[in-house]
Order: sequence, then structure tokens, then C-alpha cells
Amino acid sequence: MSDFAQIPMQFIGPVKLSGPVINGDFEVPLATYETPLWPSVNRGARVSMNCDGIQCTVVDERMTRSVLFETPDATAAVQTLGKIKADFPALQKIVEGTSRFANLIDLHSQIAGNLLFLRFEFTTGDAAGHNMCTQAAEALMNYIFKTHPELKYESISGNYCSDKKATAINGILGRGKYVVAELTIPEKICRRYLKTTPEKIVQLNIRKNLIGTMLAGGLRSANAHFSNMLLGFYLATGQDAANIVEGSQGLTMAEERYGNLYFSVTLPNLIVGTIGNGKGLDFVLENMQRMGLDETREPGENSRRLACLCAATVLCGELSLLAAQTNPGELMDAHRKLERKHE
Amino acid sequence: MSDFAQIPMQFIGPVKLSGPVINGDFEVPLATYETPLWPSVNRGARVSMNCDGIQCTVVDERMTRSVLFETPDATAAVQTLGKIKADFPALQKIVEGTSRFANLIDLHSQIAGNLLFLRFEFTTGDAAGHNMCTQAAEALMNYIFKTHPELKYESISGNYCSDKKATAINGILGRGKYVVAELTIPEKICRRYLKTTPEKIVQLNIRKNLIGTMLAGGLRSANAHFSNMLLGFYLATGQDAANIVEGSQGLTMAEERYGNLYFSVTLPNLIVGTIGNGKGLDFVLENMQRMGLDETREPGENSRRLACLCAATVLCGELSLLAAQTNPGELMDAHRKLERKHE
Amino acid sequence: MSDFAQIPMQFIGPVKLSGPVINGDFEVPLATYETPLWPSVNRGARVSMNCDGIQCTVVDERMTRSVLFETPDATAAVQTLGKIKADFPALQKIVEGTSRFANLIDLHSQIAGNLLFLRFEFTTGDAAGHNMCTQAAEALMNYIFKTHPELKYESISGNYCSDKKATAINGILGRGKYVVAELTIPEKICRRYLKTTPEKIVQLNIRKNLIGTMLAGGLRSANAHFSNMLLGFYLATGQDAANIVEGSQGLTMAEERYGNLYFSVTLPNLIVGTIGNGKGLDFVLENMQRMGLDETREPGENSRRLACLCAATVLCGELSLLAAQTNPGELMDAHRKLERKHE
Amino acid sequence: MSDFAQIPMQFIGPVKLSGPVINGDFEVPLATYETPLWPSVNRGARVSMNCDGIQCTVVDERMTRSVLFETPDATAAVQTLGKIKADFPALQKIVEGTSRFANLIDLHSQIAGNLLFLRFEFTTGDAAGHNMCTQAAEALMNYIFKTHPELKYESISGNYCSDKKATAINGILGRGKYVVAELTIPEKICRRYLKTTPEKIVQLNIRKNLIGTMLAGGLRSANAHFSNMLLGFYLATGQDAANIVEGSQGLTMAEERYGNLYFSVTLPNLIVGTIGNGKGLDFVLENMQRMGLDETREPGENSRRLACLCAATVLCGELSLLAAQTNPGELMDAHRKLERKHE
Repeated sequence: MSDFAQIPMQFIGPVKLSGPVINGDFEVPLATYETPLWPSVNRGARVSMNCDGIQCTVVDERMTRSVLFETPDATAAVQTLGKIKADFPALQKIVEGTSRFANLIDLHSQIAGNLLFLRFEFTTGDAAGHNMCTQAAEALMNYIFKTHPELKYESISGNYCSDKKATAINGILGRGKYVVAELTIPEKICRRYLKTTPEKIVQLNIRKNLIGTMLAGGLRSANAHFSNMLLGFYLATGQDAANIVEGSQGLTMAEERYGNLYFSVTLPNLIVGTIGNGKGLDFVLENMQRMGLDETREPGENSRRLACLCAATVLCGELSLLAAQTNPGELMDAHRKLERKHE
Repeated sequence: MSDFAQIPMQFIGPVKLSGPVINGDFEVPLATYETPLWPSVNRGARVSMNCDGIQCTVVDERMTRSVLFETPDATAAVQTLGKIKADFPALQKIVEGTSRFANLIDLHSQIAGNLLFLRFEFTTGDAAGHNMCTQAAEALMNYIFKTHPELKYESISGNYCSDKKATAINGILGRGKYVVAELTIPEKICRRYLKTTPEKIVQLNIRKNLIGTMLAGGLRSANAHFSNMLLGFYLATGQDAANIVEGSQGLTMAEERYGNLYFSVTLPNLIVGTIGNGKGLDFVLENMQRMGLDETREPGENSRRLACLCAATVLCGELSLLAAQTNPGELMDAHRKLERKHE
Repeated sequence: MSDFAQIPMQFIGPVKLSGPVINGDFEVPLATYETPLWPSVNRGARVSMNCDGIQCTVVDERMTRSVLFETPDATAAVQTLGKIKADFPALQKIVEGTSRFANLIDLHSQIAGNLLFLRFEFTTGDAAGHNMCTQAAEALMNYIFKTHPELKYESISGNYCSDKKATAINGILGRGKYVVAELTIPEKICRRYLKTTPEKIVQLNIRKNLIGTMLAGGLRSANAHFSNMLLGFYLATGQDAANIVEGSQGLTMAEERYGNLYFSVTLPNLIVGTIGNGKGLDFVLENMQRMGLDETREPGENSRRLACLCAATVLCGELSLLAAQTNPGELMDAHRKLERKHE
Repeated sequence: MSDFAQIPMQFIGPVKLSGPVINGDFEVPLATYETPLWPSVNRGARVSMNCDGIQCTVVDERMTRSVLFETPDATAAVQTLGKIKADFPALQKIVEGTSRFANLIDLHSQIAGNLLFLRFEFTTGDAAGHNMCTQAAEALMNYIFKTHPELKYESISGNYCSDKKATAINGILGRGKYVVAELTIPEKICRRYLKTTPEKIVQLNIRKNLIGTMLAGGLRSANAHFSNMLLGFYLATGQDAANIVEGSQGLTMAEERYGNLYFSVTLPNLIVGTIGNGKGLDFVLENMQRMGLDETREPGENSRRLACLCAATVLCGELSLLAAQTNPGELMDAHRKLERKHE
């Protein structure tokens, strides 16, 4: 009996990256049972090598945990909430005591009847931060109980976080790394490597990703198959891949600009890190090393670089599938072996 | 350089199952980097062994693919749609020609402006059916183009399927196996193994899973952490784990009945199979064998048994985490090592 | 003390309509406190008069009521559901006995734990059908209890209908009249009457209605302000205006075609009728008459004409506001008095 | 031809209110074509008179407008956003110059590709604030263009506000008055006036409002029929009733406490005011006067009192309908005349 599930893994690329966080050509690993994903993402990577690179921007980063209290009534909840907010510096101090890397940066709340939900928001250095946040939230809860004996414990997690569930809050308030990856593709590159035109990709993106998902009752999920690349990348880099649930909630944009194709993916919820559970396995260490993420950098920098590599990979796969789907002939003939399963 | 991502894997259980599809005690494999998941799910399994078993019901099964056409205008779209629906038997015939196991069972549609989305719904034997459906959809598209030259191709997938995205349609119209797993837990078993009471779990489920998720802007996702168990089970059994995105959209119910705890998980979108991509790997074959899924049965029966095993596993993990979260002392002391990371 | 709330009302138009249901130029009434809505919708109406008319298509029509039963367990629920579906002709007979105009046309269901939701779907002639459906659902429940004593009553409405709430189901399964209104606007008409270009409206629609709403966590609501026109039209025609909640969940499409603007609104959930509550008031009768809806026609025809008039009105207001918003100068200068409040 | 739509209107009540904002017994007006709403809400009002009153808490208040810019790319967008946020005091100054009552209190943002959405959040005194916010947003846009010439105008409203659409953002970030109304109902009052038990209402609320809406793909809408009361109240008090779209997105909670019923409604998005469009009509002035809202108070106080009256009215109607639906006999016999149409 095996002690490991062995998921087929390959490096794809190189992918060309640019922007304030990371620059250069990188190979990235993808672990998946759906092996046609590899050549598909590779096609996108080849496009990036023939352009000015995929520009990656980290818009925000935070990890969250929501706790849930019962209060006497909504009036009391509002009063207590006011005091807790006024005591924010003390809460920050509590959090600092729980970890060298955890910082409390914001606090959001919701009052429903006599229930009080507090959503604590932290930076967590290079860790994805699940554990760090739970520990910090526990310490915060203990402190709040001491200062507010009128509160009753309901849960260390009130689902207002929210972790690994299809919700709107993570995109709106932030959870994980919020990364935008952008690529401008000259028309001739589009034709040569993707066998399509900017115009066709723009139209497909509107009709399928924006309108189609909307009609399906989609929630902040205007893309074709972010989840496939996220799964492969998360597994290959030791991430908690259940976080592809919120990770998949992102946006693909495609616009024609002076005849060329502007193509971007916006991923507000990449829950990734370079340290923590899963990161000590040999193949993960090797993979991190091959992407240059084993170097000592400022806290948080390696995880931001990782998030950019992830977003660029998502862009490559998304671009390639959309291109394939613009072309019925391609899909139904040669490329169907590659693309068929990817969505 | 490894050619495989090696995900830590263990069998948990046995879990006791009952119901019309599968009966008996089974061990189930979970592959995950979040290894505290194992003892947590195991606790739920132990509870099942001390009750009458987790009763699993398969409510429905179908796999889907939506295609997207451009029509001249909405009036034409309605006319064409009427003809396509009237031609349903011919469509079924087309599908039969593409695979021994594919059957077209239903067809839903959406007209938006002059766009026509058709959502084909198939049974796919023991396969999850991604490929089978895409092939069938291609054949259907080809046939429809011949009979309706007024239509223009837009996409072989219009995101109205919808695959691996957070949408409402899959829960409402069905995609994958729709399984309900139910367990009645006597109060003393609840106290002994879960260190909590039925009342506490009922209240937590309402406030966290139902109200908390709703406040977070959740979409058909009233549960604590279905995604964790789904990821582990899918990886260990060769499934396309990107489908945990829709798989995680399900409901946990908890009610007090005569002092005991009625606890159920409703999982409308389990995209799983016993044949297809990923199923030929040695460790997957071994795992299937250990669950008795290597036997020859009626087409579809093995995959339904698999879906029930999956749902029962989800129930075990969901129950265990909720129990832990009802108890601040437990969480913050001994069990936090086990549970902390699971959500 | 007044016995009536007096809402300012004006006729706007004429609006030019075409398509299989209704043709000609019509004035339509709008009752609203937000009187700048009138000139705004009027601008859109003027555009329609200078084009080939707003083509309106009725895609579907049905009214719904969901009932909720408790069953022993999910296995029993599946069995009972199977029997109820097999008994569909008898259910239809029951419904026919409740009203001359009610017909049961479909049935959808959902099983959650041991709960069984049945969503009955009816045609209701020229009535919006709230009451007719509730009466029919009561009769169906009574019949089902007789034939299935294992069921327990939970509610005559299980919120799976769903009435006047922001959900995905109505758009996916249908509720009310499903109408698409389409207009092609030559570029010079666009410039002359709307002071903008097709290109600008297309871009704004994508960025605001599709992307902006998606980022806001919107649910099937890719439009600027359907609700404003719906409110005004519903109040002026005696409709239950609380149904603007689901009515507002629709899609605006804008595409450039050969330099001209294709503009459409898709409204899947117009809950409107020409008979029933509110329709007997003098001003409503006058308004109906002025729109030619007092004539005797085949059952359902007047209400379909009404729905098309409503959809065309929505198109006029949507077009006008988007045009205004493309132009910062216009907005901030002369037209702001008109448009400012409309969204 | 009438210049007014005359909507039937009645006062219901008195309703007993308590809490920090407003205390006493009040009659409230409801204008609606669905006149059975009156006796139904009246029943809830009678319950309140026999209890300690409906305690109303204003949790938050703000009105919003989102503007939309095009930026060169996401990297530039992040930089610009950082500068705009750092310039917050200057933005506040700009807003103060546009109205005596407008105050900028917060700013949220979203970057999607190279698009920058800014959601400005204001207090607006006693006005609902649609116009005040648009004027302030225009002034802010003008200022931002001067200081950030790299930005291009896209829209004065980017649908990230969001106004009168079914989205998650308003509940999460706030829009309008956020009010919780709570009532504890002794069991015997429950039986006497509502002909039901606390237990039955609790169970129905869970199964219908929480689970049923969730299954319908609902978005923050766990209630039976908030929209009916909101429509009636908004029309009778000169509000922009299209805002019932977001207003209807709220939560009903019901819990048994020591045998009694705790019943609350949480309404995060009441867009109401005592001044502004529609408030100058004679019948509105009379209605406001009868509710004591014509008195001179601190800015904002009258509108908060109005919001509490609205929330209490919603509670009365919600309670009454749920009670009726717990009882199949009641529904199908005497009370069906009253309740049938209310949802």
C-alpha cells in the first residue's frame, strides 16, 4: 500500500514574467491527472516568450479568520463592536505575541440579530497563514472574552472568513494574494501561436466567460478554467489545494488595442506560501529551488513571487484554452486531444 | 527531478455505510498535505461505527456540457430551439454513436440577446464523463449545424455547463452524482466520541454554516469544509480534483430528534468515476480494490458506490470539525493540533 | 388622510415595437417619484422611432410555487419523488380543477437531507398568477398528502419558487415572462440622439454592467438600472411591484455590428399580467386601454403584449443612461439634471 | 388621464418600538395593490403590542457611489490607488464643498486588469442620498483627474456601488441604513395571536428561509417576503422603491429561548430618507407627520427613526406570514384570503 498519492508532474515553460515583483524566464511545475493540461499551458508560455512578458502586480495580501460571538442583543452587539474597534492597537499587540510574522491589519464585522461576526485580517509573511491566523484568532478571542464578559463563544470560525467556499466576501474584502497578470499579444503572434485572432478571443471571452458564467448564476467567476491551473500549481508547490475553491473566483479580460490583444487574469484570492505544511517535502523543495524561491529574501517576498508565478501560469492556460475554443476546426481535429479535458 | 508530486496518503476508517447503493464497513483513502485531516475524519468514522451507519442515497446523476451558438436574433433563436427540442430522439441517436456509455437524457437552454446556450445532459456509465460529454457535444454541434445553417459557432463550451466554477446552475439542474448522506447519532455517542451535545452542533450549524455563509455572500455552500475531504478523496482515487469547486457547494443539516442528532450532508455535484483519466495509476487501482470497486458490476454501479463512499467521508469530516468548534476548550487545548488547519 | 399614495405618472413615447407578438408605435406609462426618468426613457423611445423598432421575443412563460415536505429520509424522498413525477397527468388534472386558466406544465425538485422541495410550474393565462399558483399548489399538496401519507407538511412555500428574492433559480428555470428586446441603432442615430458612439456604449456595457456587477458579487444582474423602469411600469399598470426584485435580474448586451450598435435587454423574469389584483383601478384600466390591452384576445396574448411593452421600455431607459454615462461632459453638465438620479 | 398612479394605502398598527433610536407606539402607512398585506402586517403589529416592543438598532449608515477609471495597467493602478488613499483628507474636503450634509467616510476599491473601481462611501444626513452622492462623486472625479492625468474616464457609476441590483457588496460593505429589529414573543402570545408555536416558526425559518433560499441559489436573502413590506412602506413615504431590490436582501432569525420565541430581521440595506425626491408630496408629508418625523431633530435622526419604523414593519409582516405557513389548516381555510398573495 502506497503512502503517497503520486500525481503526474511536469515543468512547463519557460514563461516570461515582468513587473515590480519578479522578472525573467521561469519554468513552473504542474501536477495533475489531466496531462493534456501541460501542452496547453505550454502553448501559452510560448506566447509569453514571444511578447514582452506577463506583467504581474500584487494588489493586496492578507489572510483572514472570522470568529463568532453571541451577544445579548443587537444594541449590545453594536456597543461591544465599537469598543473592540477602539481597542485595535491592543488587538494588534496580542497578535504580535502569537507569531513573529503575524500582523493584524484590519477588522471587518457583521451583526445579524444578536450574533456578532468579526473578520480578522492579517499579513502572515511567507506562509499562506491558515494556522497562524487560527492561533492569532484564538488569542484575540481569549482577550476579547476577558474584556467583554457579556459575549458568549459560538465558534472560532463563523464562515465569514470564508475558507474554501464559494462566497463573494473574499473577492470584495480580500483573502490571500490579490494578483493581476497582464499580457499584450501582437496580432501576428496571436495568429502564429494561437491560430486565432484578437477579435475572436475578445468576443469569446465576453460571450462565454462574462455572459455565460453570469447566466449560470456564477459568483465572481468570469473565467474558463482557472481551477485547472491552480490545482496543478498548488499540488506541485505544496499548497493546500482545497483553496482553489476561492482561487477559481477570478476574472479574465480580453480587449483589442490597436489591433493587438490585451489579455489579463485577475486573481484576488491566491492562498499560497513558501513555508508551512507541505513545503518540506523533497519534491516541493526541489520545485521551489528551480523557481528560485529557496533564496533568502525579505519576509513575504518569496510568497509574492510564488503568487506571481502562479498567476502567470493561470494566464497561459486560460489563453490557450480560449484560443482553442474560438476555432471549431482546431478543437474538433488536432487539438482536441490536448484541450478536450481542460475544462 | 521527480515526475510525480507525492501527496501524503492514508486510509481512514472503517466507516459504516448503509442504504440502497452500498452497505458495510469500508476504509477510504485521503491524500492531503493537511495531515491533521486524517484523525479528524477518523473520529467521524468511529462515530459511524457506533451508530446504524451512514445512509447514502443517490438522488440523481448526469454530466453536462453547454455549447454556444450565435443566432440572427432572439426570435430566430426561439424558433431554432423549438426545432432542436423536437428533434431530441435524433440527438440521442447521435450521442449513442459517440460512446457505448453516453446517453443524452435532457437538454436545457438559455437565450440571451441573440445568443443560444444549449446545456446537454448525459449519463456516462462509470466515468466522470468530461471527455465523453465533450465528444458527444461536438457530434451534436456538427449535427445541429447541418440541420440549422442559420446558426454560427461560438464555443464548444459556453460556461453554462458549468465546469469547475462557483455557479448556481449545477446545484439546480444537476451535474455529477447528487448524493445525500445521513446519520442519526444517539446523544450519548455524541457526548462520548465528539465531546459535545446534539443541541450545540445544531446551533453551530445554523449560525455558522447557514447564517455565516449567507452573510459572506455564499452561493449554495452551507457547510464548514466539504472541500477538504473532497480534495483528499479525489486525489486518492484519481479524480479530477479541480471539480471540488462545484463539489464544495453543498449543505450540512443538523437537527435534534428525540434528543439525538440527525446529521446529513447533501452533495449535489460529485464529479467522480471509477474509469477514465487517472484511474490507471497503480496506487489508484490499489485504492479502488481496497474499497471493492474493482469488481465487475452493472455500468454506473461502481461509480455510484464510489460517490457514496465519498459522501460518507465528507460527513465524517464535517461532523468532526463542527463538534470541535462547539467547544472552545477543546479547540484551544488538546484538539487544536488536529483540527486547527481543517478549515 | 389620503387613502391612496399618489405616485407621479406620465406617458412616454411613442416607442416603436416589432416582432411576432406586437407591432406598432405605443405610448407607455411610468409612475415614479424619480421624475427625471421620464425624459431619459423618452430619449430611448425617440431612438426606437428612428430605427426599425425594438424587436421583442417572448422566450418562455410560467409562474411557480414551491411546496416543502418533510420525508422520513432521503431514500424515501427519492422514491416518493419518483412516484409523484410518474403521476404527473393526475397532477395536471388537479390543477385544471382549480382554475380555468391554470395549467401545470413542469415540475422541478430538490432533496436536501430529508426535505423534499417541489417547484410546480404553471401557465396562468393573462394573470401574473400569484394567487392562481398558490391555490393550485394547495390542491396539489392535498392530493399528494392523500397518496403519500409518509410525507409531512412543512410549508406551502419553500422559498424554492422563489418569489421577490434575489436568487439564481428564476433565471435558470424560468418564472414570469422571459422576454428579449433587441434594437439595432445606426451609428449616426447613435451620435445624433444619444451623443455617443456604438464603440463607447459597447465598452461601457462590458466594463460596468458585465465586469462591474460581477466584481460587486452580482447574481445574474448585468445591467445598469432595469429596476427603475420596471418599478415605474409595474406601478402604472397595476402589477405587484415587489416582483421587480427578480425582474431586475437581467442582462444588457451591446455589440458593434458593421459600425452600428446592436443593443438588447434580456429579462427572464417579468411577473406581469393584465388581469388580477390592482388591474381594476380606474387609472390602470385607462392605461391598459391606451396601450390597446383592453381588447379581447386569446388568453395570454394581452399579457405577452404587456410584457413586450415593458421590455421595450426597459431597453429605452437602459440605453439612455448608458449613453449619458459614456460622456463625462454631458453627465456633468446639461444632462445631469435628467440622469443623475436614475441609478 | 390621471397624472398620478393611485396606490391603495392604509395605516397599520400601532406597532410598539423600543431601543436607542426610537420608542413608543406608532402607526405606519403601507401603499400596495396587494391589500391582504394590511391585515397580515397588522397581526404582527398586535403581537408587538403584547410584548415588550420591537427593539430596533441602527448598526451602520452610509450611501455609496462607485466611479470607474481606466489606467495604463494594474501596476499603475496600484500606485495611483495608493496616492488617492493617502490623499483622503483632501477628498473629504472636496465632498464637504458639494453639500452641507455630505461627508466622505470611507473608500473601497477593486482593480480588475487595468480597470480601477473606487467606491466612495458617504453619510448624507436625512436624505437617502442618491443625488448627493452622485454630485460628490463627480466632484471627486474632477479632482482626481487633475491630480492623476494618467487616468481615463470610464463611468460615473461602475456598478460597484451597487444601486438597485442583486449583489453581495451592499450587505458586506454597507449601503443605506443597516437596521436590526428584534422581538421576544412569549409562547402564549405566539399561540394566541399567531396560532402557532415558537418551535414551529423556528423550524420553518430554518427550512424555508435559510435552506430553501440557499437551494434556490439565493444571495444574502434568507427571508420570506421582506420586499412586500418594503415596497408598501417605501411608496407610502416617498422613497425610491426601486431600492427594494437591495433592501430585500436580509435575514430572518428565529430561535427558541426558554420556551419563548426570539424573532429578528436584519436589514443591512434600507435606502431611506425623510428629505429629497418624493418627500414633498402632500400625502407623504402627512404620513411623515403622523409618524412624528416632521419634527426638527439632529441631522440624520429623523431618517434613522424612519429606518427603524420600516424595519419594525418588516418584522411584523414577516412574522405573520411565517406563522400562517406553519399551519396548513389555517392557510387553506380562513386565513388564505389574507395571506395567500403575500409571497
